[in-house]
Amino acid sequence: MRILHHLPLSPFCRKVRIVLGEKRLEFEMKVEKTWERSPAFLAMNPAGTVPVLVEDDGTVICHSQAICEHLEREYPEVNLIGESSAERAEVRRIVAWFDEKFAREVTDNLYREKMMKRFLATAEPNSHAIRAGYQNIRYHLDYIGWLAERRKFLAGERFSLADIAAAAHICTLDYLGDVPWEAYPRAHEWYAPIKSRPSFRPLLADHVPGSPPPAHYADLDF
Amino acid sequence: MRILHHLPLSPFCRKVRIVLGEKRLEFEMKVEKTWERSPAFLAMNPAGTVPVLVEDDGTVICHSQAICEHLEREYPEVNLIGESSAERAEVRRIVAWFDEKFAREVTDNLYREKMMKRFLATAEPNSHAIRAGYQNIRYHLDYIGWLAERRKFLAGERFSLADIAAAAHICTLDYLGDVPWEAYPRAHEWYAPIKSRPSFRPLLADHVPGSPPPAHYADLDF
Repeated sequence: MRILHHLPLSPFCRKVRIVLGEKRLEFEMKVEKTWERSPAFLAMNPAGTVPVLVEDDGTVICHSQAICEHLEREYPEVNLIGESSAERAEVRRIVAWFDEKFAREVTDNLYREKMMKRFLATAEPNSHAIRAGYQNIRYHLDYIGWLAERRKFLAGERFSLADIAAAAHICTLDYLGDVPWEAYPRAHEWYAPIKSRPSFRPLLADHVPGSPPPAHYADLDF
Repeated sequence: MRILHHLPLSPFCRKVRIVLGEKRLEFEMKVEKTWERSPAFLAMNPAGTVPVLVEDDGTVICHSQAICEHLEREYPEVNLIGESSAERAEVRRIVAWFDEKFAREVTDNLYREKMMKRFLATAEPNSHAIRAGYQNIRYHLDYIGWLAERRKFLAGERFSLADIAAAAHICTLDYLGDVPWEAYPRAHEWYAPIKSRPSFRPLLADHVPGSPPPAHYADLDF
């Protein structure tokens, strides 16, 4: 059985879990406490990061975007990156927006400061970073709303990896209670049907011991 | 004519320039001073980053990895990402190593602190960051040497995007005089033939006004 080494709240792991779900591929999950730097895991991925996917034939694929490109090539029946060059460019542009820009401006400031620093126990959360994260998420929710007003989905007329990457980050922050939905109705309109997709359901069942999600997290009618 | 919007010393732009050269694709370059935040450029790429490639048919592709994936699909004759899943996984793993880990630990600390902050004129270079960059590059040169001892090229037996991504970062730092070659003979052995490739020649002719490279930068017998 295909194995995904992951952390439950990592948006990069969530992105891969949603893609596997959308493509209806079976997989087992193994939690990898990356901060323990296990030698067996570092031998698979010297960068020490999750997600890492191990295929049935033993092929090891590290890094969320490498995994998504691999799954798209091997299992193209459910197309998530688009057909034409222009479609693919727009999907990948928005994936990079969330996995790099949103990650740096929002996810790192909130998820990493609040959750990862607890596990790492290396430092206190930085309150300046957390304040910056709260500020920055607002302008990204504006951008989601702006796109969603002009298109059915973030990268165009069909559901794609762009929606998946964005929703993966958003749902991690939603678990922390850090998404100010009430002020961003258009972003909410885009997110609600995505949250209802079957591929999303396992994420809504995640539960980190000692850090329960807010009540609306798993509520499809939030 | 295909247009690449770029900055001469950006390793991400250099990666794309080398790929275009390896695939023997003609292109024009336009320098984009990203810190000026030109509205016309932001309309093409709202993230405001280079590289951005505009194909003859007007297709706009933002983000270096999206551009490389696009070029590999459209112009597969010169294969740079590999054939099998395992090869492709290893190439993309190493690309991500350099574009994320090396970028964060080395390039950001040296190129961004020393060069970009001059253009941005927002802040003084941070001497702690620069010291960290000097430390970190050593362990990455060790890793390059370790890989190059076991394989002909970084990701396996053939030249690939992994070598291109690594060499793009290294040559930007070499322009700054920040690569301690004398202590890393194996990394030097890997780099010397790459530096001699025709696709690399235009990079060696780059010259940023007011910041000339050290004498060995363009020397193939360095």
